[in-house]
Amino acid sequence: MDVVPETLALLRRWGADAIRDCDGTAMPEELVHSGAKIYSTYYTTRKDNAWAKANPDEVQQMYVSTRFVTATGPILSIHLMEGLYPELLRVNTHDDIRRWWEVMDRTTGEAVPVQTWHYDCTAGDVVIENAEPFHDYSVSFLAYIIWDPVHMYNAVINGWKDVEHQITFDVRQPKTHAYTMRRLRRYLEEHPEVSVLRFTTFFHQFTLIFDELAREKYVDWYGYSASVSPYILERFEKEVGYRFRPEYIIDQGYHNCPYRVPSREFRDFQDFQMREVAALVREMTDICHEYGREAMMFLGDHWIGTEPFGPYFKDTGLDAVVGSVGNGSTLRLISDIEGVGYTEGRFLPYFFPDTFHEGGDPVREAKVNWVTARRAILRRPIDRIGYGGYLKLALEFPEFIDYVGSVCDEFRLLYENARGTTPFCFKRVAVLNCWGKLRSWGCHMVHHALYYKQNYSYAGVIEALSGAPFDVKFISFEDVLRDPALLSRFDVVLNVGDGDTAYTGGSVWEDPRLSAAVKKFVHGGGGFIGVGEPAGHQYQGRYLQLGSLLGVEEERGFTLGRDKYNWEEHPHFITEDCAGEIDFGEGKENVYALEGATVLRQKRSGVQLAVNCFGKGRGVYLSGLPYSFENSRLLYRAILWAASAENRLHEWFSTNVNVEVHAYVKNGKYCVVNNTYEPQTTTVYRGDGSSFVKNLAANEIVWYEI
Amino acid sequence: MDVVPETLALLRRWGADAIRDCDGTAMPEELVHSGAKIYSTYYTTRKDNAWAKANPDEVQQMYVSTRFVTATGPILSIHLMEGLYPELLRVNTHDDIRRWWEVMDRTTGEAVPVQTWHYDCTAGDVVIENAEPFHDYSVSFLAYIIWDPVHMYNAVINGWKDVEHQITFDVRQPKTHAYTMRRLRRYLEEHPEVSVLRFTTFFHQFTLIFDELAREKYVDWYGYSASVSPYILERFEKEVGYRFRPEYIIDQGYHNCPYRVPSREFRDFQDFQMREVAALVREMTDICHEYGREAMMFLGDHWIGTEPFGPYFKDTGLDAVVGSVGNGSTLRLISDIEGVGYTEGRFLPYFFPDTFHEGGDPVREAKVNWVTARRAILRRPIDRIGYGGYLKLALEFPEFIDYVGSVCDEFRLLYENARGTTPFCFKRVAVLNCWGKLRSWGCHMVHHALYYKQNYSYAGVIEALSGAPFDVKFISFEDVLRDPALLSRFDVVLNVGDGDTAYTGGSVWEDPRLSAAVKKFVHGGGGFIGVGEPAGHQYQGRYLQLGSLLGVEEERGFTLGRDKYNWEEHPHFITEDCAGEIDFGEGKENVYALEGATVLRQKRSGVQLAVNCFGKGRGVYLSGLPYSFENSRLLYRAILWAASAENRLHEWFSTNVNVEVHAYVKNGKYCVVNNTYEPQTTTVYRGDGSSFVKNLAANEIVWYEI
Repeated sequence: MDVVPETLALLRRWGADAIRDCDGTAMPEELVHSGAKIYSTYYTTRKDNAWAKANPDEVQQMYVSTRFVTATGPILSIHLMEGLYPELLRVNTHDDIRRWWEVMDRTTGEAVPVQTWHYDCTAGDVVIENAEPFHDYSVSFLAYIIWDPVHMYNAVINGWKDVEHQITFDVRQPKTHAYTMRRLRRYLEEHPEVSVLRFTTFFHQFTLIFDELAREKYVDWYGYSASVSPYILERFEKEVGYRFRPEYIIDQGYHNCPYRVPSREFRDFQDFQMREVAALVREMTDICHEYGREAMMFLGDHWIGTEPFGPYFKDTGLDAVVGSVGNGSTLRLISDIEGVGYTEGRFLPYFFPDTFHEGGDPVREAKVNWVTARRAILRRPIDRIGYGGYLKLALEFPEFIDYVGSVCDEFRLLYENARGTTPFCFKRVAVLNCWGKLRSWGCHMVHHALYYKQNYSYAGVIEALSGAPFDVKFISFEDVLRDPALLSRFDVVLNVGDGDTAYTGGSVWEDPRLSAAVKKFVHGGGGFIGVGEPAGHQYQGRYLQLGSLLGVEEERGFTLGRDKYNWEEHPHFITEDCAGEIDFGEGKENVYALEGATVLRQKRSGVQLAVNCFGKGRGVYLSGLPYSFENSRLLYRAILWAASAENRLHEWFSTNVNVEVHAYVKNGKYCVVNNTYEPQTTTVYRGDGSSFVKNLAANEIVWYEI
Repeated sequence: MDVVPETLALLRRWGADAIRDCDGTAMPEELVHSGAKIYSTYYTTRKDNAWAKANPDEVQQMYVSTRFVTATGPILSIHLMEGLYPELLRVNTHDDIRRWWEVMDRTTGEAVPVQTWHYDCTAGDVVIENAEPFHDYSVSFLAYIIWDPVHMYNAVINGWKDVEHQITFDVRQPKTHAYTMRRLRRYLEEHPEVSVLRFTTFFHQFTLIFDELAREKYVDWYGYSASVSPYILERFEKEVGYRFRPEYIIDQGYHNCPYRVPSREFRDFQDFQMREVAALVREMTDICHEYGREAMMFLGDHWIGTEPFGPYFKDTGLDAVVGSVGNGSTLRLISDIEGVGYTEGRFLPYFFPDTFHEGGDPVREAKVNWVTARRAILRRPIDRIGYGGYLKLALEFPEFIDYVGSVCDEFRLLYENARGTTPFCFKRVAVLNCWGKLRSWGCHMVHHALYYKQNYSYAGVIEALSGAPFDVKFISFEDVLRDPALLSRFDVVLNVGDGDTAYTGGSVWEDPRLSAAVKKFVHGGGGFIGVGEPAGHQYQGRYLQLGSLLGVEEERGFTLGRDKYNWEEHPHFITEDCAGEIDFGEGKENVYALEGATVLRQKRSGVQLAVNCFGKGRGVYLSGLPYSFENSRLLYRAILWAASAENRLHEWFSTNVNVEVHAYVKNGKYCVVNNTYEPQTTTVYRGDGSSFVKNLAANEIVWYEI
């Protein structure tokens, strides 16, 4: 309300064509008539406590497991709410606990018979009456989510006092379903000024739990544990034809984290949820369209089940997806979505006091964010860019306002030059894991764009790919088993991660068809790049199941008796641009090269980088590869080499690793882009191999005609 | 021959009472009559090529596996001798290859039907006629050992030319068995001067293979792969009542390396071999005794099947065991042997030109060897010490001659003060693994006293224990399952090693009786120390199966979503003597503490040392512990703490970690010993808690009356 003229001025200055309201604010009249589209945030599952309180049976639910507790005698009491924030969750005793809860003996893996335990309501304890001494037990139970976890997070972080807790209700259930559609119509009718309904998001929050001290306790941005209710589960049972067990969701306490090799039952559940959610989203988008509005999804908190890379997303009828851009991978998490009219990225920094305060440097944050994401935009542009937060705060930083203006101009030119065509791709690259397309660009993520010690060395590969001149697809082991010829549609296949995780496959390698298909592909001329513990699973005399094509194995004690002579480092095409030490991140300690393989780097008798020929094809082993410009180049060279295409290095190429070249042949354009915050000099190679020397300013992008 | 007077002089100077011949030399008459006992090396399996050549069917055999070879079409030829030294092994086509060989599909783990492969004698290839394309195959075959591997090793290392290769013959087989007993009698008759027959060793060489370049290719000092023949295996089959498969020995190419969780079939085979070998040794010792001689076993090359810690060793009738002393663990590998009259250690350096040359420093080597082993001798003395090699070389180093003289005096005093009693032990400690007593003190060994990157951080624990004031036993998971009360006979149990190895147990933890027994033991007041990945096996929501008592878990990707707040380091009784950084060796990267555990050390968000209370008992987690005086003290304190006995720290104790105190209460003696090569000052605590300050010279050991 207090920056209306400034907003109008900025609309012109930035060339912006849309304005979004802030959560809970009303759009001033002058802005409604500014000519810009009006976005409005819309929450389907909360901000209506009256409804939630009137329908407690349709409050959202979550499967929760207690910790594992050791029985020291025949009677064992387990307090369900131990370590949980009491205002977040309430134990669901409304539904039949003997049907929907499970008491697990975690020492044997068996469920405790329902006749031998009961729930003591007063104490809040499950009491096992016939426990096996010194076995460990846990209880899987249903709890109502009585405070929306994101609302709670905001309240805790911002120190909000006396704010009414927003209760989440479950749109999937019959009463709330009907009410929600009425509520949506009413909203549209009451807000004729809104052109785009920005759903934040739909029905199910990713798994997010807080502990008794209101600290985050568990988070999984891909988690489905909070998308359950007996109503939903009964429908699931009917569809799959087998009895549901809480263990399908609890998964030994791992909650089907994306590192787990997914069970058949969880895949079934995911598929069921995706279909049901898509149909329900469709009902809402149909209503929007009926009122002549666009429906946009924010790829945020309550996105579970929508799965933009899943098979049913095209049925949702959504016009657009918008998401927060943290880096190149998260950019492509948005821009690679198919079946919507347009995609939009929300860039950082958010106009919040954490950055926009005296002494803050929002320009620096904006530059890092933009330059990091730009690599990926150049490969697959989002259609629109935006910023969010309190405009008033941003206005106090005129340099920032200028910088964003330049970003807008840069984006418009980029979009103009790149749109309607696929940028030149050297090779077709597939990332192979248990999840395939469904987890495109999200490999090794747990929380959105957050890195952990155990994943940054792998996520770095995905980040490098997000801006690399390759046609990147994500395929699953199931895809390969279903159609072994699938691999032949790629030049290079990557398998990235720790052994016995979903990213490398675990026991899937016990299926001989899989390893045979990959070996056949490489032997016939394909390339394979394994990072970390590729195909790592102890089986039949090997840990790295593709050791024969990668030329490496991991020492797990069983081959200490084998003498290992292949340690000498060799110069190689792949490492030609590596000036000093290569950063392999966490790396691996105990990998050794087999006879015939060529070691490029080893550290303390642990191979970090090796190459191997296998038939007409080639394998590359890397112990890890955190994201950096140097490592991005290393991966680029590794892919070319694996594809036996070293001779194509000097096409659309920059000798300086800090600068990249992207070509849009159909549009007759190419660009040279400086990814750093310093000036750079490089030799640029065109597609025909001719070259010129170019000096670039910090962050500069220069466009040329072909 | 050329140092006879010097030998006689040294006998007096050192107080030596025995002389051993060198391999292949005759004992000079003057020495025979010196009054000293005469040891004579005796080889049962070689040095009789006439016999070996006349009985090629009874030459020793070995199971060998080819490497894994990928089939690219339906016909696959695998050359058996690829990568093997051709003068070491010869393919055994004498016995039925379809019975005794196995062609394995290593992609499926199944044996290829014998009808679909054949052996091409001319090419030396097994030809698979119906291979599955892109499956990997290997051939397990029998080969004759046509050159004794140790003889070959000596020949290669010393550059011997034109030496006739000593062929190994198999004393287990009927003709050679009968001949061997005749040969032994003849030897004894021809050598009346020999008082002690030093068998080097008995029948089966540990697994030792050389590659085509005569380099060591595979070694396992515990390996049984060279103890086979159809004759033996048919007897084995009769005894166990099931059909033998080569895979029982080949074990996916891992050859039942001691890191492998042993299969039932391999345990059966080991047991069979132990019994048969013990009976055959007994035949030979009986003959020795019949001739009035002693029978001594050298714990060396051909020791397989004798198993001094096995159940049948007491039946061998051996008078003595002698072995090479590399450190404390290898000392106790000898001194802890029961059922023989005496044990003897051969100390280093060997009188060979590698040490005894101009500029060499044999005194330093001797000191390191003696001081390292002395810790262990003080806990469980060997009965005799000796040195070996060419005396003539040693005579040129008078300082060395003096030093050995002082060692002999020191040993005699030590032996006098310590014998006939058990040194004071604070606590009863058990090392728990798959092997138990059978691999006492040899945990994490592959080759005798050799350390690898993957084992020194674990072998260090065993080395520390070898000289620590505890009553140390080695027990197996089977022992515990057979008698769960076994644990109650100990104060502290240790489990040391990488997950899914025989040292930590792997799938044995899926047996609920095992984890329940350990938890019960600790909960009731016992102590448990886990090092590395104790009880590490992915099962039912845990990797570290004893996580609840140790208070730690390993991050393997599945719990990345769990927030981890317990990182603060705390001061503690265990680390009170740690001056600076603790050396955890290879350590572990990804261990985190559970709630309630107390972190003592963490590095880059990886817990290295933590403690936890569990019922009345205590758990200690260590990521690794290479041997050093500092770490030895840390383990000492950890054991006291785990046993809830911190209050006993100041009994028989030295404040300086470089100095140790050992008490022999029954004999009324205690000693203070400086383990370093520099002078040390310390405060010594007696058993009653009284103390005094003491300065010690380098290496000094001082004896006191109690």
